[in-house]
Amino acid sequence: MTLRIYGDSISGNCLKVKWTADHLGVAYDWFETSVIGGETRTPAFLRLNPAGQVPLLVLSDGRPLAQSNAIIIYLAEGSDLIPSHPYVRAQMMQWLFWEQYSHEPYIAVARFQMRYLGKPAAELDPRLIERGHGALARLESALTEGPFLVGPSLTLADISLVAYTRVAHEGGFDLSPYGAIRAWIARVEAALNITD
Amino acid sequence: MTLRIYGDSISGNCLKVKWTADHLGVAYDWFETSVIGGETRTPAFLRLNPAGQVPLLVLSDGRPLAQSNAIIIYLAEGSDLIPSHPYVRAQMMQWLFWEQYSHEPYIAVARFQMRYLGKPAAELDPRLIERGHGALARLESALTEGPFLVGPSLTLADISLVAYTRVAHEGGFDLSPYGAIRAWIARVEAALNITD
Repeated sequence: MTLRIYGDSISGNCLKVKWTADHLGVAYDWFETSVIGGETRTPAFLRLNPAGQVPLLVLSDGRPLAQSNAIIIYLAEGSDLIPSHPYVRAQMMQWLFWEQYSHEPYIAVARFQMRYLGKPAAELDPRLIERGHGALARLESALTEGPFLVGPSLTLADISLVAYTRVAHEGGFDLSPYGAIRAWIARVEAALNITD
Repeated sequence: MTLRIYGDSISGNCLKVKWTADHLGVAYDWFETSVIGGETRTPAFLRLNPAGQVPLLVLSDGRPLAQSNAIIIYLAEGSDLIPSHPYVRAQMMQWLFWEQYSHEPYIAVARFQMRYLGKPAAELDPRLIERGHGALARLESALTEGPFLVGPSLTLADISLVAYTRVAHEGGFDLSPYGAIRAWIARVEAALNITD
């Protein structure tokens, strides 16, 4: 039995897992699971993940693993997506935790409210906009120093951060002032063969 | 030059770093840095960490590292605080990301507002209370299955999650219904020699 990935294709958190597995050539079966459709709240799904969240990885022996960044670290162990130098690896980890605490809660949430709940931009909580732009400014600053977030090549930090940054405009964030971010998105999409 | 840790002793995120270093016998100099006092927003501090956040680890050669969970992973690499088995290590990572996304934003934020900003419990955002109790219920459930969050002994998952759980009552969360959590807090405090 091969790996199973339960994911919602509109979720950047889920796409991180798909892109990482595809990039590494890891075989898996994808089970499309709609959050808006309530498919993460069924008794069957809650037995797999009591937190009721996707993405969820299920190993060949049935053991589950949740949390997008924990899953991609697990999949990428020993590959060049995780730097081998301890300090550089720690910088990658720093970006992964920053993504979940200081980027996703603003950029992804604004996008979800506008694109999927139909909220007009003018009705978004102003803190989402302000903190989202704060996160983008921090990314822009980091990306003026090198082609990728950590070291000279693609790492999990890029995969994790690009997921919602590349669709930030769907949450009302105009990326045109962020030239280094836009060039980096194109670079990461090319490295991951993302064409949609 | 020894390691430097910039931290605010009222912050669970900072105490995680102190406890981990102490447990591992890592030598460091602690630089008390008050968030409420504005000491994370001075030009000198922002040069060290542009995100203006503590904890911050500064290596002996001056390189900085931010994000509490990234710092404790860096400090604990190769120690028994990080399980060597890939799946068990991944479970530990899952808890660390869950802590920053689904626990700290409710439990720590409610405590900060009540204890340090003087907000009465009745004025807290009801979502903080509801989601905080959701996080505690999930912890309680996990801790009925074993003495520590992952495997048979103390890991970074326990250090990270205990930091704000042990002071949850300061945010209005009554822990008396959570018997497994209370026993685990005592167990982790004993393992870490926390006496305050």
